[in-house]
Amino acid sequence: MNYKKLISAISDELKVLEDKGKVASYIPELKKIDPGKFGLHIATVDNKSYGLGDYNEKFSIQSISKVLALTLAFKIDDNKLWDRVDVEPSGTPFNSMIQLEYEKGIPRNPLINAGALVLCDVLVSHLKNPREEFIEFLRNISGDPNIDYCYKIFESEKQTGFRNAALINLMKSFGNIKNKIETVLDFYYHLCSIEMSCKELSQVFLYLAAKGVHPATKIEVVSPSKSKRINAIMQLCGFYDEAGEFAFTVGLPGKSGVGGGIVAIHPGEFSIAVWSPRLNKKGNSYKGMRILEFLTSKTESSIF
Amino acid sequence: MNYKKLISAISDELKVLEDKGKVASYIPELKKIDPGKFGLHIATVDNKSYGLGDYNEKFSIQSISKVLALTLAFKIDDNKLWDRVDVEPSGTPFNSMIQLEYEKGIPRNPLINAGALVLCDVLVSHLKNPREEFIEFLRNISGDPNIDYCYKIFESEKQTGFRNAALINLMKSFGNIKNKIETVLDFYYHLCSIEMSCKELSQVFLYLAAKGVHPATKIEVVSPSKSKRINAIMQLCGFYDEAGEFAFTVGLPGKSGVGGGIVAIHPGEFSIAVWSPRLNKKGNSYKGMRILEFLTSKTESSIF
Amino acid sequence: MNYKKLISAISDELKVLEDKGKVASYIPELKKIDPGKFGLHIATVDNKSYGLGDYNEKFSIQSISKVLALTLAFKIDDNKLWDRVDVEPSGTPFNSMIQLEYEKGIPRNPLINAGALVLCDVLVSHLKNPREEFIEFLRNISGDPNIDYCYKIFESEKQTGFRNAALINLMKSFGNIKNKIETVLDFYYHLCSIEMSCKELSQVFLYLAAKGVHPATKIEVVSPSKSKRINAIMQLCGFYDEAGEFAFTVGLPGKSGVGGGIVAIHPGEFSIAVWSPRLNKKGNSYKGMRILEFLTSKTESSIF
Amino acid sequence: MNYKKLISAISDELKVLEDKGKVASYIPELKKIDPGKFGLHIATVDNKSYGLGDYNEKFSIQSISKVLALTLAFKIDDNKLWDRVDVEPSGTPFNSMIQLEYEKGIPRNPLINAGALVLCDVLVSHLKNPREEFIEFLRNISGDPNIDYCYKIFESEKQTGFRNAALINLMKSFGNIKNKIETVLDFYYHLCSIEMSCKELSQVFLYLAAKGVHPATKIEVVSPSKSKRINAIMQLCGFYDEAGEFAFTVGLPGKSGVGGGIVAIHPGEFSIAVWSPRLNKKGNSYKGMRILEFLTSKTESSIF
Repeated sequence: MNYKKLISAISDELKVLEDKGKVASYIPELKKIDPGKFGLHIATVDNKSYGLGDYNEKFSIQSISKVLALTLAFKIDDNKLWDRVDVEPSGTPFNSMIQLEYEKGIPRNPLINAGALVLCDVLVSHLKNPREEFIEFLRNISGDPNIDYCYKIFESEKQTGFRNAALINLMKSFGNIKNKIETVLDFYYHLCSIEMSCKELSQVFLYLAAKGVHPATKIEVVSPSKSKRINAIMQLCGFYDEAGEFAFTVGLPGKSGVGGGIVAIHPGEFSIAVWSPRLNKKGNSYKGMRILEFLTSKTESSIF
Repeated sequence: MNYKKLISAISDELKVLEDKGKVASYIPELKKIDPGKFGLHIATVDNKSYGLGDYNEKFSIQSISKVLALTLAFKIDDNKLWDRVDVEPSGTPFNSMIQLEYEKGIPRNPLINAGALVLCDVLVSHLKNPREEFIEFLRNISGDPNIDYCYKIFESEKQTGFRNAALINLMKSFGNIKNKIETVLDFYYHLCSIEMSCKELSQVFLYLAAKGVHPATKIEVVSPSKSKRINAIMQLCGFYDEAGEFAFTVGLPGKSGVGGGIVAIHPGEFSIAVWSPRLNKKGNSYKGMRILEFLTSKTESSIF
Repeated sequence: MNYKKLISAISDELKVLEDKGKVASYIPELKKIDPGKFGLHIATVDNKSYGLGDYNEKFSIQSISKVLALTLAFKIDDNKLWDRVDVEPSGTPFNSMIQLEYEKGIPRNPLINAGALVLCDVLVSHLKNPREEFIEFLRNISGDPNIDYCYKIFESEKQTGFRNAALINLMKSFGNIKNKIETVLDFYYHLCSIEMSCKELSQVFLYLAAKGVHPATKIEVVSPSKSKRINAIMQLCGFYDEAGEFAFTVGLPGKSGVGGGIVAIHPGEFSIAVWSPRLNKKGNSYKGMRILEFLTSKTESSIF
Repeated sequence: MNYKKLISAISDELKVLEDKGKVASYIPELKKIDPGKFGLHIATVDNKSYGLGDYNEKFSIQSISKVLALTLAFKIDDNKLWDRVDVEPSGTPFNSMIQLEYEKGIPRNPLINAGALVLCDVLVSHLKNPREEFIEFLRNISGDPNIDYCYKIFESEKQTGFRNAALINLMKSFGNIKNKIETVLDFYYHLCSIEMSCKELSQVFLYLAAKGVHPATKIEVVSPSKSKRINAIMQLCGFYDEAGEFAFTVGLPGKSGVGGGIVAIHPGEFSIAVWSPRLNKKGNSYKGMRILEFLTSKTESSIF
């Protein structure tokens, strides 16, 4: 693939692409962001790197970090993990509490909030200093020592997280949370507060395009089989209520965050990160979705 | 890929693989089947063909035909189709009626019963003789004039289809069914009653492994973009409540039927059909799932 | 109680009471009604009779007839009935399909549509000519030979009843409908089409104010124990999603219909029927509710 | 009514009545109770008093105290209360979280846990020392200075209350809780921990049989209109998922608690408290329900 030509075509497309939607406003810190920001970065399995726009600017990756928590929890806890969280799509957003209640505290998948809370519980059980060890894990994968939490975001999340508190208490009532609720929630809000640039993000995720081994650092982050499975989970569960839409129009496994970031993987080829803060009605970056659709149409790079 | 060695490895695996589950019993005709039957057939994009076991024996493909109805409806009705049916996974089976009610008569996707009823409504609106034209469409794709309905199955389905009648009436109450209920249901039960062998099935589906153009007949069944999208829908919605499990363990787009058949697609490579009548608790062929998992582990042929 | 003074006070109240809401429009026949109509009639256990406004004009009693179907089915089928239908309030209207699915085809109570369909199934099983015998039953109770079905309403209901068809098919799929769907639905739509005036309505229902024995005809319609139980069911389930509101503000067992009629019972004292076609958002007569609230506040005649 | 003869008949009935069900076990303190305990006490509006069995022994009244919290909150906050909590029955127990989510944090009624948490929030907003003032309120009504909290029960509830924490957090996320979650929960668990004997319980509740004025102390606890409305709410919502069953078989407004207590009101006549620790599947006292059914059949004292 001629990535340079691709970046140039995307740049042209951006000039005509309207931008719609609203910046996430449920926490004050996210509301402050300039809605006109746009970044895109591609990292290839042969260690090439292509950026566009604000690709070096850090933003709040929010739920995208769930995939990284899944990677570490899956690595540590192996298949026992799947007794406590399923791998199925979650259906309508309306259903979050309903399904958790109907399915007796077992979240549908690890990429919805309830599922990520279980991941956090697993990590809290296995790690001595979850907060430090987790961020160290990300720095090691990527070889990038600058990745870090943002404490303003962390505080903001913590003060408004009543729905997450509801979810974790409901799961605890079913026996699916082992540690103290406060400890798990504290770690969870740390997860939500990680900041990266598009460049960092695409580089951290590159192991999922390379059967689990990071092409730059040569670290085996996870086994090939687990790498494949994490991609499968992203494909089916990475976009809340819009997983089907993303598979349908983009056709790559990926994960979005309410900070406006999206990461997507073409196994064997590249990982890509885009960032544009305005969100569509389903909570995914409006422009990010559209640009990824443009990219895969242009390059016919869907996995399907 | 060395398909002959693969078939031989599968043959060995079958000797040690236990068989569990129950043959579908909701209609008498399906109950009569010998549960020990097993067939498998691979058709490749370069027109090679590899079979194992009862791969030439016809069986009831049941819901697998929904993908074929989707193909024809998508071809005819293009994007207007997606105003009447969504492309999202359906969540729990318990939800079928609930989601249809909550989402005002719009089915979650075209591969659940409610969605396929909408496809039938579309086809009844556009075709003069839906029953004849649809089977002719399948015969043309595959170049196989023997594909046909089974009238015993048709009658059996019709007499026990109260839940389908409930679904279509609910959708009609929301205005999402345009034709007479009896006409649409009649066509729907025809769809459910199609019989094919594993060989026929893998050959009919080969266009989805080849960007929409059937490698044998050279017919462009659908455009490359639509072919990709149909695969994406299969990946996310092809296995009822077990779509995630199938993506997780097998990693290919596919579709199952309660007759014990499964078809799966490796884009650019092959289509495969397996048949084994015993079903797991989610209604998918127990042995079929296990053999496809074995195959993709063996060949690392997942799309992820 | 001085009923004459009461009627006069209501007459005064009506002059200042605004009228809100909309006439039912889901079938054309109901839409034609003059929204300004108002009738009220009280029949006492000592055979006194007090009317106001259009109390002699016939209107479509709609769902109010469900209580009469319950009376006859309960009389005939006794306690076996309660294996097929529960006696609990139904919760939100959104839940109709959900609860039926969750509770495996057993309706929450006999006064919602699903429950009344089960009553119809029971009556179809036990009566030779359900249509004739049912209307005869009403004529006998009240001593009024003029009570009858309205065939225009019947036809109208039948042509738009897709949701009822969905409910009955769903119940049939669970085995909770014994007769042919068409037969039961036909009888159900007859039930919906009965016409009475406020005077007739309050007289027919008088047995529920008198422990099951009709004060005028001396017929024991049901036993005292069953009469008490029918009143209890009306109290908890007679106003769809507004049963609590009616108990809270009026405090009498009663039943409403989308034709704008409401009947209410003060055990040991009287039965009352009001009619005013404009409905509030929950589908109950706006003015009817307000006038009954006025009446029970005025007379302190609540059962609580 | 000859209460002495009635008590004697109940005494005979108890000899032949089997006892079924299980003592509540979700908190250790409740599990310790002797399942063979039985108490019954009737307090009449003319200040007569009739007891049977262990009617002077204190037990944990649990949810019965919700009616007392409702009384005080309704008295203080008047009709504004009903913007934050509805007066409708709750439907299936499965629905608790679902309805709260569907109805955007507004509980169906004040007698389910979510509703009582709103009552507690109201009381915390209006009272200086909610804990002291509430117990004082009960002592004043009844003229009984011995009514108190049980701190073992309180601690036990607090440590296992994850589901209540889930409910209150969900409501807080919708803005329907004004105070700090910890403060409201602390008061709520106090409510759950009140202990009374059958004698005390029937005496405290006597104002609801006497239009709001307590016959012994002559205190106007609430207005006649509010007393009537509290009875209506008890009738429709006092027995969780078995409100209809209780209305159907007993026919009096009442409230149960998982400690095995039930209180019921015959307006204008008496209040009655029964206590028997074994619970039926719906969480209501098995023997308590049966004895109240016997009593109202015997005396024909239903309100219907």
